[in-house]
Amino acid sequence: MSGPDRTLVAVAPDTLPEMHAALVRAVEEAGATVVPIEEASALVFADPMAAAAFPDLIERGRHVEWIQLPYAGVETFAHHLDHQHVWTCGKGAYAPPVAEWIITALLAGFREIPRYVRASSWSARDGRNLLGARLLIIGGGGVTEALLELLEPWGCHTTVVRRSDRPVAGASRTISAEGLNDAVGDVDAVIVAVALTEETTGIVDASLLARMRPDAWLINVGRGKHVVTDDLVAALTESTIAGAVLDVTDPEPLPARHALWSLDNCVITPHVGNTAEMGRPLIAERVRTNVGHWIADEPLVGLVDVDLGY
Amino acid sequence: MSGPDRTLVAVAPDTLPEMHAALVRAVEEAGATVVPIEEASALVFADPMAAAAFPDLIERGRHVEWIQLPYAGVETFAHHLDHQHVWTCGKGAYAPPVAEWIITALLAGFREIPRYVRASSWSARDGRNLLGARLLIIGGGGVTEALLELLEPWGCHTTVVRRSDRPVAGASRTISAEGLNDAVGDVDAVIVAVALTEETTGIVDASLLARMRPDAWLINVGRGKHVVTDDLVAALTESTIAGAVLDVTDPEPLPARHALWSLDNCVITPHVGNTAEMGRPLIAERVRTNVGHWIADEPLVGLVDVDLGY
Repeated sequence: MSGPDRTLVAVAPDTLPEMHAALVRAVEEAGATVVPIEEASALVFADPMAAAAFPDLIERGRHVEWIQLPYAGVETFAHHLDHQHVWTCGKGAYAPPVAEWIITALLAGFREIPRYVRASSWSARDGRNLLGARLLIIGGGGVTEALLELLEPWGCHTTVVRRSDRPVAGASRTISAEGLNDAVGDVDAVIVAVALTEETTGIVDASLLARMRPDAWLINVGRGKHVVTDDLVAALTESTIAGAVLDVTDPEPLPARHALWSLDNCVITPHVGNTAEMGRPLIAERVRTNVGHWIADEPLVGLVDVDLGY
Repeated sequence: MSGPDRTLVAVAPDTLPEMHAALVRAVEEAGATVVPIEEASALVFADPMAAAAFPDLIERGRHVEWIQLPYAGVETFAHHLDHQHVWTCGKGAYAPPVAEWIITALLAGFREIPRYVRASSWSARDGRNLLGARLLIIGGGGVTEALLELLEPWGCHTTVVRRSDRPVAGASRTISAEGLNDAVGDVDAVIVAVALTEETTGIVDASLLARMRPDAWLINVGRGKHVVTDDLVAALTESTIAGAVLDVTDPEPLPARHALWSLDNCVITPHVGNTAEMGRPLIAERVRTNVGHWIADEPLVGLVDVDLGY
């Protein structure tokens, strides 16, 4: 083995004590020793909110070759990415809770839970089934894989839209982005579960919304900027679609008194697809796996493509 | 084959035109001929609300040997059951949508959807997972089987409570009713999905509620009378449990201004586990199957035990 001692790993910063402790434990369970950044071969970055702390840390980490980020999407870190290091992030690790949130959103919409929550008397007996529904999923990554796995017994017809049309395991069919406009009019729900890039920014705009069925739901668990908010407000106000469930918004957090809050056919959850509490054991598990692989010089999980930015 | 001509089947009453038409089609697709009740070997009862129409019909149906009821639970028909006929009902047929409703209820509760529906600003990021949760299910029938099937990829720990402790496929463990009191304190949610009998009436009372964890949810998709409503109102008011999601109530329909409507930790849906629209194709499929079996003199699906009353 050439290069620095791979059993020496830094976990920093320590601004989130619970997360820091969980990641230190994970590093040690994988057989490595936690050391100051100056001695480390690798850095496990331990605070998803502290990207600003990175330049100083990496300046001191002269021997660091691999950096593990705690994010699923790395856009807040994008300007730090470089070709001098190997970068991994949490992509895929957080997928199961996020997939669970998507199913929560679909069921809440289809089964009219918002209306029943607001009701104060026995009301019209409505609702439709997720069982056997037709779903269009934008994005073919870890969240989509986890979603398809959870939905396996539900008999849904699933179309995954991704950059290439390389089939996604468990999907009824996979199409490339060019097919999106044609496919979107045929489904009970459109689910946005893709990384935010230049190409996917604003992918849900007035034109796409206009192609959706009037009984179709929009579910966004990607990033707020995937959806052109004003176009969505217009579609919901005019009921050209059934409704939207949003775990991410643009702007985010969504200001009080924003039009979306007042729409009965819109449910907003405050970016809880994966909460800190749900995510901590999952990123710790990812770190444990990757530190083990790092020591053994095996391929790391969740590699970031520095040029693609995810 | 002895007895009357089994290819002659009546479908009555015809008070629900869409349902009547769907069941006539099902009978014909199974290879039988639809005839007046006077000539029929079997009766497919075609209106779940019209039990009162039964005595006159059966008085005229001198050759009827088998009666297919459109219900899942047959209590509204209990006083008509007799040993002169073979009785089948829709039990199991409606199970998948009801199981879907249970998962909707669990996810709405765990993921705090009611709070987010009512919110008009970005709020605390909370929620917990159904993934890996511990569930106690009262009842080992078709709904429970369908629920366990849908939950298979979710990694839940499931305890099924039933009359006997004969194992239910897909459950982590099956216990008999005597074990209920001990098991109930150990779970994230208690799900009532059992037939209403003398033994299960009021099974969720103050004593059982007091044994539940303060963060546990109660889900009732059985019948309203499984739960002692006043005891539940007390538990919810004092927050000794996390909340309840009820698809059935006692009384039902729940009157406007009932205390349950005003509780933020209680969601009431108006008996929509399976709606008429969801159920019509499912009971038609059951009728198609059973008429086929009837003609071929094979065992019928969904046999009612006249003595047990379900």
